[in-house]
Amino acid sequence: MKRHVTPEAHLASVGIQLPEPLPAFGQYVPAVLHGDQLWVGGHFGTHPDGSVIVGRCGEDVTVAEARDAARSAAINLLATARATLGSLGRVMRVTRVFGVVNATPEFAEHTAVVDAASDVFVEAFGDAGRHTRLAVGVSSLPANLVLEIEAHLIVVPETKISSP
Amino acid sequence: MKRHVTPEAHLASVGIQLPEPLPAFGQYVPAVLHGDQLWVGGHFGTHPDGSVIVGRCGEDVTVAEARDAARSAAINLLATARATLGSLGRVMRVTRVFGVVNATPEFAEHTAVVDAASDVFVEAFGDAGRHTRLAVGVSSLPANLVLEIEAHLIVVPETKISSP
Amino acid sequence: MKRHVTPEAHLASVGIQLPEPLPAFGQYVPAVLHGDQLWVGGHFGTHPDGSVIVGRCGEDVTVAEARDAARSAAINLLATARATLGSLGRVMRVTRVFGVVNATPEFAEHTAVVDAASDVFVEAFGDAGRHTRLAVGVSSLPANLVLEIEAHLIVVPETKISSP
Repeated sequence: MKRHVTPEAHLASVGIQLPEPLPAFGQYVPAVLHGDQLWVGGHFGTHPDGSVIVGRCGEDVTVAEARDAARSAAINLLATARATLGSLGRVMRVTRVFGVVNATPEFAEHTAVVDAASDVFVEAFGDAGRHTRLAVGVSSLPANLVLEIEAHLIVVPETKISSP
Repeated sequence: MKRHVTPEAHLASVGIQLPEPLPAFGQYVPAVLHGDQLWVGGHFGTHPDGSVIVGRCGEDVTVAEARDAARSAAINLLATARATLGSLGRVMRVTRVFGVVNATPEFAEHTAVVDAASDVFVEAFGDAGRHTRLAVGVSSLPANLVLEIEAHLIVVPETKISSP
Repeated sequence: MKRHVTPEAHLASVGIQLPEPLPAFGQYVPAVLHGDQLWVGGHFGTHPDGSVIVGRCGEDVTVAEARDAARSAAINLLATARATLGSLGRVMRVTRVFGVVNATPEFAEHTAVVDAASDVFVEAFGDAGRHTRLAVGVSSLPANLVLEIEAHLIVVPETKISSP
């Protein structure tokens, strides 16, 4: 797989700089790589100062604010993926994204919210960033997070990375 | 893998004709195939006229109506799988089904609802359609869908399909 | 992969004896093995007498009780994995754990609850038990279960098990 422009450069061209990866807040690891598969666990959005974005859609969070959280969650997820892989250039395909939105029973705009996360994957990888998706609304999330984004990717295995 | 009767014929024998696959309603693709793995994203049920089945179990949707939605969602999911694979005869195993039901806190009949989706996979593939499953109830779904069904399958890779 | 002490012995050293695997309560199978991948569907916690642990966090279940349910669900899940694999010594990595907690909208201690399940995997497999995770709260679960734990594991394929 060759790319003339790296995913990191694609992201930079739309103003996205990958931050430091989020630490784990419980008994888990942010990502697991095995062969050509990369699992990345639930990631959430953060404010520019690093604090966690909390609240519930339909209650104290607008769709625009939730979209900001979704975009940030996807960016944080890619920061984890890059830290695990060394480079996002190893990503061959984003296969699955699961978006879980903290929402009131009346809320129905989950698609608009989770689209903001999905956009980030397409901005980074183009067509290789197009993924299957499940978007749902739940009544509560850990620490009152607005949303969580989980992903599964296909990557170039370490054994197939040739030396430069 | 040889079958004397195709999954499509098995489905037809119980009165199921696969419809046109659902279009994507957001920034996602309905299915991703890589090697011998097929991921199919969240699918929902549709009425015979193509309109989306909406509502909440325990509120304005009965268990029987939700089972109809689950059955339709599984059929729509198989229509997507067939469109991606060319033929359902390439399916070797349904590994995982995730059923998410829009429900009130008092609702407890998720198993009966999601079983109606699981039945479709067994009708199509026999024992190869028997899958692991997670069934949950949530307080909201995109556009007030009654439920969503997501699946992961093992399939014959394209490189192993011999010409006829 | 060689281990001087088996996962079963590690579990015994912390007082965990694997019970009989839970039966299926619907149209599904508890686990599916394909190649080096093992999918284990939603598992729940049981009381010592075998009855199902039910209730809702923030309502009629304390965090301590929910942690007991999470620990039991993980143990039940490993009992299923062992029954499928023959021995937990074949487990190479726990890749993904999904914890779904039945909770009121005000509940926020999901991490503490699901950690009790994650701990079991680390107790059994050490670093190989460290997994990605998604923890969410939902408004209802089948039969009013307190929680469900689903997992994906990488295992030694049957074709690579050498005779003793």
